[in-house]
Amino acid sequence: MDLSIINQLTQTNSSKILLCVLDGLGGLPGKNGKTELEDALTPNLDKLANLSDLGLSIPIERGITPGSGPGHLALFGYDPLEYQIGRGALEAVGVEFKLTDHDLAARGNFCTVNENGNITDRRAGRISTEICQLLTKKIESSIKVDNYEVFVRPVKEHRFILIIRGKNLSDKISETDPQIIGEPTKECKPFNNDSVPTANMVNDILKQATNVIKNEKHANALTLRGWSFKPSMPIFENTWKVRAAAIAGYPMYRGLAKIVGMNVLQTGSTIDDEIKTLEENWNNYDFFFLHYKTTDTYGEDGNFEEKKLAIEYYDKLIPKINALKPDVLIITGDHSSPATMASHSWHPVPLLLSSPYTRKNIHRTFSENECRTGNLGMIYAKNLMTLAFAHAGKLTKYGA
Amino acid sequence: MDLSIINQLTQTNSSKILLCVLDGLGGLPGKNGKTELEDALTPNLDKLANLSDLGLSIPIERGITPGSGPGHLALFGYDPLEYQIGRGALEAVGVEFKLTDHDLAARGNFCTVNENGNITDRRAGRISTEICQLLTKKIESSIKVDNYEVFVRPVKEHRFILIIRGKNLSDKISETDPQIIGEPTKECKPFNNDSVPTANMVNDILKQATNVIKNEKHANALTLRGWSFKPSMPIFENTWKVRAAAIAGYPMYRGLAKIVGMNVLQTGSTIDDEIKTLEENWNNYDFFFLHYKTTDTYGEDGNFEEKKLAIEYYDKLIPKINALKPDVLIITGDHSSPATMASHSWHPVPLLLSSPYTRKNIHRTFSENECRTGNLGMIYAKNLMTLAFAHAGKLTKYGA
Repeated sequence: MDLSIINQLTQTNSSKILLCVLDGLGGLPGKNGKTELEDALTPNLDKLANLSDLGLSIPIERGITPGSGPGHLALFGYDPLEYQIGRGALEAVGVEFKLTDHDLAARGNFCTVNENGNITDRRAGRISTEICQLLTKKIESSIKVDNYEVFVRPVKEHRFILIIRGKNLSDKISETDPQIIGEPTKECKPFNNDSVPTANMVNDILKQATNVIKNEKHANALTLRGWSFKPSMPIFENTWKVRAAAIAGYPMYRGLAKIVGMNVLQTGSTIDDEIKTLEENWNNYDFFFLHYKTTDTYGEDGNFEEKKLAIEYYDKLIPKINALKPDVLIITGDHSSPATMASHSWHPVPLLLSSPYTRKNIHRTFSENECRTGNLGMIYAKNLMTLAFAHAGKLTKYGA
Repeated sequence: MDLSIINQLTQTNSSKILLCVLDGLGGLPGKNGKTELEDALTPNLDKLANLSDLGLSIPIERGITPGSGPGHLALFGYDPLEYQIGRGALEAVGVEFKLTDHDLAARGNFCTVNENGNITDRRAGRISTEICQLLTKKIESSIKVDNYEVFVRPVKEHRFILIIRGKNLSDKISETDPQIIGEPTKECKPFNNDSVPTANMVNDILKQATNVIKNEKHANALTLRGWSFKPSMPIFENTWKVRAAAIAGYPMYRGLAKIVGMNVLQTGSTIDDEIKTLEENWNNYDFFFLHYKTTDTYGEDGNFEEKKLAIEYYDKLIPKINALKPDVLIITGDHSSPATMASHSWHPVPLLLSSPYTRKNIHRTFSENECRTGNLGMIYAKNLMTLAFAHAGKLTKYGA
């Protein structure tokens, strides 16, 4: 549903919504035929499930595995197929680089090339983040472009971001990574007449940067891709007429919340730190996004047992969440990360919604299987916010 | 699905479809943990459920609470986000004012202003409908606008409609209700150059109308809002190639059926009157919309017990409906009106479809809970008509 229509229906009141995202929550059956969530002992979540409406959330569309960006945008109520964040901008967000409206961002890789200039390793043997920090610092301090600023910042291992700040830039230029070894890095080419100056500038920057690192031992070349500007989207707080706070230890999720206009609270990196931040700020906001990374980390590692334990750890925190008495409580994930696949997946994600206005059902547990027969049925993640705000009494009637 | 595509697939045959709308049917659990429908004794509906396909209907979208207009448009097969009826036109429809293509309609409120012209009560203490009738009559007979007709008709209490009939009118003009007390009523302002003459005319009309009532005791001023033309939408009978009859005691639903081009039959105000009208006209039409208001009335009143009894009353009429042997029988609501909320709500609505072509299931009762596990699953209300017409053998194959 169009956010401009929703904006006409939203109204303020004193109720509070808490969106708990267990990253990569959904799973697949392991050796004993149960998913991570089904195998975990979760007395508190089970008790909550029995008082709530359950369902399954489809992050993007059937069969589509989301990255963290679209997975969270959907949960925040944005159609992830309409609002897209380019790779460069997303990486910048991930390291909390504050993009302005005049910034063109690219994701960079350090690589190695031989004496003929042909790539021998596209990731330079996954150099350490420390080396990446040194190289980016060296490059950033050397590059000179008239009337433009250039920022080169480390991400992780061989990954970095390069940002050009200035007027009349264009993202309609080609990537320089050939995506194959044994070939030289590519020139940046303009896709149209307007982008010729930007492409020329990028090639000049690449030349200067390569000169800086050409004699380095660990990485002697670089590639750039994912050219993108800061995405433009309706501000969450304006659309929904709430004061919204994001509590997330990891930079990527802090960045995503920032991009949609939430207030990103200072917090530590553990879920215990995050819960403490939630408690301290409970009176100051109407909407909270609370992010838990550990479930996804172990899912992506293919570690069934640790993912299960991460869910059990979260379960023990539920009494603290309940003690805050949120008017609407949602517990779900941005996507599935089955340990058996050791990656993100497309499978629908368990969803729990608690409020005074649920139909309820007898659910013995919070699990993929129970969610399948829940009152919410299958729901697109992008529609979850309207549901949450309806339950919070923050949405008026559509049409007379 | 686009109605023009559907129109290419529809074919006539002798089968008959009966759409029974129990307004505000869906509910929430009351004190004993059951919804109104679950708590009601409904042996006839239960028997029917056991021979039918069940499901849950989403009126507009997840979390969106519909007004009567969009709720019914969706059931009639119109995408309620695409086809919208402005407030003025809807109110005109509600009192069965026959809008022409040259009519600009507004919803009006009588209000009271003090000696400085500032509003003291936006609804003039909810004056009686009788006083409203007197005031509107007085105004309508006094207003003179060259080359245009102006109609001022009572709705209920302080509410009325004002219709300007003539050429080159524009609905791109502002509302005159400041929506706040302590301020004067607003001037009507044009949103563009084309709407300047209409805005001027409205201000002249407001001046004349205020002069007529400025010394009245109960209401001495008026505001206008919801400027809108008669909505334009594909004619139901053309799209579906049927003779369609609407049987509804309440003006609003008669008006909505009229707007989409159904034949609105003369009937009494009770469901017994309506069933009699249905029986008498059974041979003359292929499609029937039968409206039952009482469920919504008690839901909106917050009267759980009376809503339950209203459902039980309807249940006793089912044998009369069965006796007509409709080829396709649908029983559902336009939205939920849980007594515990005393208002319309966004919750999916119980849905029953009976025809020779259902898959069937063992359903012990017709209830929210049984509908949750029915063959139809969750379905958007706007898709119900294609389903009904398919079951009636009135839809041919899409594509070769």
